[in-house]
Amino acid sequence: MTYSVVGKRLPRIDAPTKATGTAMYAADMSLPGMLTAKILRSPYPHARILRIDASRALKLPGVKAVLTGQDIPRVKYGFTFRFPQFCDEYMLAVDRARYLGEGVAAVAAVDEDTSLEALELIRVDYEELPFVLDPEVAMRRGSPLVHDLAEQNISVHMSHNFGDVQEAFRRADHIREDRFSLQVQAHAPMESHAVLASADPSGKLTLWAAKQSPFRVRYALSRTLELPEGMIRVIRPALGGGFGGKGEMMSLDFCAASLARSTGRPVRIVYSREESLCTTRARHPMIVELKTGVMKDGTLLAQSCRIVSDGGAYMSSGPIATYVAASHLNLPYRLPNYRVDAYRIYTNKQPSGAMRGHGAPQPRFAMECQLDMIAEDLGLDPLELRLRNAIDSGYVAPNGYIVPTSGFKETLHRAALASRWEQRPTQKPNRGMGLAAYTFLCGNSSHLWDTKGAMSSAIVTLQENGTVHLVTGASDIGQGTDTALSQIAAEELGVKLEDVNITAADTELCPLDWGTGGSRVTFQAGNAVRGAAREARRQVLEAAADHLEARPEDLELVDRRVYVKGSPGKGLDLSQAISLAMVQASGAPVIGRGSFNQNAMLPDFGTGMGNMSFAYVFGTQVADVEVDHETGQVYIHKLAVFHDCGFAINPLSVEGQIDGSSIMGAGYALSEELQRRDGTTLNPSLLEYKMPTALDTCEVIGGLVETIDPGGPYGAKEAGEGLMVGSAPAIANAVYQATGVRIKDLPITPEKVLKALEGKNK
Amino acid sequence: MTYSVVGKRLPRIDAPTKATGTAMYAADMSLPGMLTAKILRSPYPHARILRIDASRALKLPGVKAVLTGQDIPRVKYGFTFRFPQFCDEYMLAVDRARYLGEGVAAVAAVDEDTSLEALELIRVDYEELPFVLDPEVAMRRGSPLVHDLAEQNISVHMSHNFGDVQEAFRRADHIREDRFSLQVQAHAPMESHAVLASADPSGKLTLWAAKQSPFRVRYALSRTLELPEGMIRVIRPALGGGFGGKGEMMSLDFCAASLARSTGRPVRIVYSREESLCTTRARHPMIVELKTGVMKDGTLLAQSCRIVSDGGAYMSSGPIATYVAASHLNLPYRLPNYRVDAYRIYTNKQPSGAMRGHGAPQPRFAMECQLDMIAEDLGLDPLELRLRNAIDSGYVAPNGYIVPTSGFKETLHRAALASRWEQRPTQKPNRGMGLAAYTFLCGNSSHLWDTKGAMSSAIVTLQENGTVHLVTGASDIGQGTDTALSQIAAEELGVKLEDVNITAADTELCPLDWGTGGSRVTFQAGNAVRGAAREARRQVLEAAADHLEARPEDLELVDRRVYVKGSPGKGLDLSQAISLAMVQASGAPVIGRGSFNQNAMLPDFGTGMGNMSFAYVFGTQVADVEVDHETGQVYIHKLAVFHDCGFAINPLSVEGQIDGSSIMGAGYALSEELQRRDGTTLNPSLLEYKMPTALDTCEVIGGLVETIDPGGPYGAKEAGEGLMVGSAPAIANAVYQATGVRIKDLPITPEKVLKALEGKNK
Repeated sequence: MTYSVVGKRLPRIDAPTKATGTAMYAADMSLPGMLTAKILRSPYPHARILRIDASRALKLPGVKAVLTGQDIPRVKYGFTFRFPQFCDEYMLAVDRARYLGEGVAAVAAVDEDTSLEALELIRVDYEELPFVLDPEVAMRRGSPLVHDLAEQNISVHMSHNFGDVQEAFRRADHIREDRFSLQVQAHAPMESHAVLASADPSGKLTLWAAKQSPFRVRYALSRTLELPEGMIRVIRPALGGGFGGKGEMMSLDFCAASLARSTGRPVRIVYSREESLCTTRARHPMIVELKTGVMKDGTLLAQSCRIVSDGGAYMSSGPIATYVAASHLNLPYRLPNYRVDAYRIYTNKQPSGAMRGHGAPQPRFAMECQLDMIAEDLGLDPLELRLRNAIDSGYVAPNGYIVPTSGFKETLHRAALASRWEQRPTQKPNRGMGLAAYTFLCGNSSHLWDTKGAMSSAIVTLQENGTVHLVTGASDIGQGTDTALSQIAAEELGVKLEDVNITAADTELCPLDWGTGGSRVTFQAGNAVRGAAREARRQVLEAAADHLEARPEDLELVDRRVYVKGSPGKGLDLSQAISLAMVQASGAPVIGRGSFNQNAMLPDFGTGMGNMSFAYVFGTQVADVEVDHETGQVYIHKLAVFHDCGFAINPLSVEGQIDGSSIMGAGYALSEELQRRDGTTLNPSLLEYKMPTALDTCEVIGGLVETIDPGGPYGAKEAGEGLMVGSAPAIANAVYQATGVRIKDLPITPEKVLKALEGKNK
Repeated sequence: MTYSVVGKRLPRIDAPTKATGTAMYAADMSLPGMLTAKILRSPYPHARILRIDASRALKLPGVKAVLTGQDIPRVKYGFTFRFPQFCDEYMLAVDRARYLGEGVAAVAAVDEDTSLEALELIRVDYEELPFVLDPEVAMRRGSPLVHDLAEQNISVHMSHNFGDVQEAFRRADHIREDRFSLQVQAHAPMESHAVLASADPSGKLTLWAAKQSPFRVRYALSRTLELPEGMIRVIRPALGGGFGGKGEMMSLDFCAASLARSTGRPVRIVYSREESLCTTRARHPMIVELKTGVMKDGTLLAQSCRIVSDGGAYMSSGPIATYVAASHLNLPYRLPNYRVDAYRIYTNKQPSGAMRGHGAPQPRFAMECQLDMIAEDLGLDPLELRLRNAIDSGYVAPNGYIVPTSGFKETLHRAALASRWEQRPTQKPNRGMGLAAYTFLCGNSSHLWDTKGAMSSAIVTLQENGTVHLVTGASDIGQGTDTALSQIAAEELGVKLEDVNITAADTELCPLDWGTGGSRVTFQAGNAVRGAAREARRQVLEAAADHLEARPEDLELVDRRVYVKGSPGKGLDLSQAISLAMVQASGAPVIGRGSFNQNAMLPDFGTGMGNMSFAYVFGTQVADVEVDHETGQVYIHKLAVFHDCGFAINPLSVEGQIDGSSIMGAGYALSEELQRRDGTTLNPSLLEYKMPTALDTCEVIGGLVETIDPGGPYGAKEAGEGLMVGSAPAIANAVYQATGVRIKDLPITPEKVLKALEGKNK
């Protein structure tokens, strides 16, 4: 197929406003009479709240309202309300604070200084409680309980068993057991969490919220504020990155909404960088104990995996992260027998939640590192080992994952070629090359809340002037989906990208959409948009066909013109064709609607069975690193990332994702970690929390492997989260190659490298 | 029929934000980096522009751009571009300024002070030209020509002739000839003209414009800026009154848009009250010479009418005003023979344009005053004379006006009853009662620009939470149509008014709508909304019927519930029914679309034939006044206004229109006039321009005569413009009754009354 708009390297439609600084983010917004609110936070990792006295704060001139846990509806929040057991968190601590930084009260005042001053005037009487920070300690009987009813602090436990694991291990020629440990990584988006809430005199709320899913936030607000959904409108302004951290409703949204209603004035809350880093969600730290049995030739026979995941103080999206971690053992290798025991443990720390990859990177790190160890044990090339076990299109995994298309083997070959893998044995001293594969979903298969609405819907309206109005609930959080979706509408309707105006991510104007998460937008919303555009296109072609005395199927719609195939002269402008379609509809606008709603179901968390997504991506990353034996510092020379993205709706965007995601993975591998002592975060700023800066980035060779997935729009799959998964194991494997030391706990800091080198040289 | 939401006295949905001052008007809006622009205006009523030197202004710190007539596309503007001969105005004077106050240049600067200072630094070399201000003088051969090609300064001439006028006058028992003169009235909305324009880096414009018709403004900007419509988005923020004065695109819109594109920064223009009063449009002053022939019993036989209308310097909507003036002789009385010669004359004054009533009030004043004179001549009661000639439902006028419903006679009876008309002969000295009838359209029948889109379209989307999203291009300018349209959607969908969210008057989000003008919104947009809501309702009922094992036509949809008629227990919540409908549509939203597009055609301006509207309203007003013989001051004790509004969608709103409109008519009758000398307006502020204040208002007895029009939604007709038409003649007739003096030229100022009383007493 040749296309006119999709598949093209088009600049993002939001690039001009972002590049010129005119894009409006939530924190840029202001309304007359607006108040600024701040949140008072627990100074203890675990404490009973005996009494809150806000009277002095309320007397401070400029203070308009104080909200405490005593004032809020007693509705516990969970990332989904479909399962009551997942709801364990109040939007402000009611009786107990379970982590240092948990919100205890909020103040709305005329400006930020006054709010901050008022926070200090609120007196909270706490009774300190014993706390537990280490998940393995927390699992021991007798440890302090973060939630009284969670025995051994287990918040989630999944135990899945496929094939005959015991028998397979017996057959194995070689078995390895290793323990890996993964740290806590922060999302650290450039834009901090922010919201502006305004209540009209009837109490109806409008929130401009930096959120990945306006609809999920509306739903959660409706539940926790005990307001009908119709009283709440959530709009996502320009958004500066989410990475999973802006998926859920959080305290700031709830508090701003609540305070806007009680004061009758608009209320804005912008989290400081410290709040953003230390009190929102972060990536689940995990301990992964992995046992793998193989044949001599490297054929994988069985795995047994025990995961202990540090969930922090609340559930957040922990069940999903646990499931993704457990189920991603199924791909991208044939693994007929495996069992996994995955525990998510409550600790007195900020809750772990969704973050790019959402459970996939941690066991993947373990598996890809261990595969290299096995390859070495067996004297196999790591590439060869992976090729031997790699799945193909059409594969059905033991847990029911169905893989319509896999370009995995091609990514292995091409990554090896591009990185000159064959020269690996001859690299200079201290230099090493490591390889890792990865896989990920193209969106989840079910809503997290009660709705009959599709996962994505879209509405396309055509104007007589030939412009297309695309309405979608999908939320572009910087990844470029507004552009991709507009390209799809433009392609179907034969217009240029600039002819498409998009209204997105507004719960009042837009049809329901699950939002951004699970790498789903291009795949799912893309299908919805394509369907809507095609329905509009059909109406236009039918009207044009009448006029041209042709059959609709004999018409082309390209470059703003409709014409008879093969006779470009016999046609009319799209705008004329739209006019004709409007005449047929008594002058009403041409509207198409579309949805994506394939087999909406959650996999069975209990058995682990179910096809969580409709397509899967695969990729291979090769890291070329050099290790300074004096300092222990790891320098990345090059990352080669070959990604099976299905069809690339916008190759430029996919390449941008490859760059950003693999470098985020490099930060995960080498430096990013929220360091804590006794519940306090020691590096609560971007000066101390070491993300790779522009100067720390390396050359990234990105390559697209364009399988054409039957389910994706034009064959597209995801290119967002999966991409970050391969970096850490590829780098760890490269470090091993460069130094001979195997670091199994991330991040691979200079200290750890030096210590390991010392150990090796002893 | 009994209804749940329509027909109810519900408060306006925008009342809370307006009452609390939180509604955002264009002048309240601000964007980062916003510039303020001001317009330099011609100090001469007629002058050639020889040279404009803006160099000094451009050097003033803070000035970002200057725009002059030399910089703009040479595209002449007209209120419609369908007829090139109606296009006679540049958005800034290019070579000649034709009235004092015409825009000559515009400056955008960092603030208003800088812009104003810069205006003084622009040097314009003018050559003063002879000017003409009086339309009767302007018509004389040899008078200065305002436009070179308009002979005798005639901008419009319509000559219509129906029946055999000459023969009918021969048969008449009595003939009267009178000359009436009507002044220039300003719209003077509380909110001045304002616009904020912003161009994104690609040059795409967004305007937040205080406008009655965003779509007409988009179209006119597209033509005059020579930009595709797709590059322009016009949004109407909260709007504080228009009265016809905010219907057209004007200099400020064009200049703000143009400057926003050239500077790359948002540009706001807010007209001062002086600019608003003296440089925008105003009501056409007219001289009406009316000759009427009647039988002894008062039966109207023939009329001959000559109208000379002062059009000011440009065409504006003059052809429409002229046609409305000419054609309104047809109603509300049977008049089998008439001819009318209506001239609209160019003069060197601010252009006359559309204003509430739009051509109807002026000849109506003449006719209703003259009918009273004829009644006196014949010894008939004025009420009796009118009843004798009043039309009934089903009447077809000589010019083709078709009247589906007329409550005219009932308005006459009820107004007489309410005002105790029978006590008129026994009133105290200096006290008088006068009666006048009126008629008006319910919307025009055709677009003023090239489109196949309906006059009104609407889209209704249902959310699973039971809320209704209504999308309409119609523009509520304070008259309450957002409320009325929401009531219609709520009625059809069985929800409460607060369940409806409305998005209106945004050319990107909303389907095409002609906008507010000609009293069309409730009638036309109301029909479109009803159609859209019914289409959505049908989908919901079909889904519910499957579920309830009933037929859709056997279901009721009331109070957020669907149930089988007569069995309220056998049903389900609307939200559930919507869910079911969504399931049937694969999770896509339930959408209905509707349009109003009946027989769209313009009447023939040449012959006068054509049915301009789809329905007509009628009413009777009785004024009860007292005249102070010492001062000449007229005090209105009471106005009784009985209006055939069809079905009142919201009686509270109709009564509000009765109050506001009849008091505006009283201002027209007694005090409002833009006083000019040599082209200069002498009363350019609300201190000097005498509108009735709250303290000047009188008791208004409003009565609704609810005919049920077959074409209107639920039978509704207009209640906006017609209402103002009866005040002036009723008051003039009352003044005559109180004093014996007949004032034929408005306004009836104390000076005129005193002078007339002196003349009478001589």
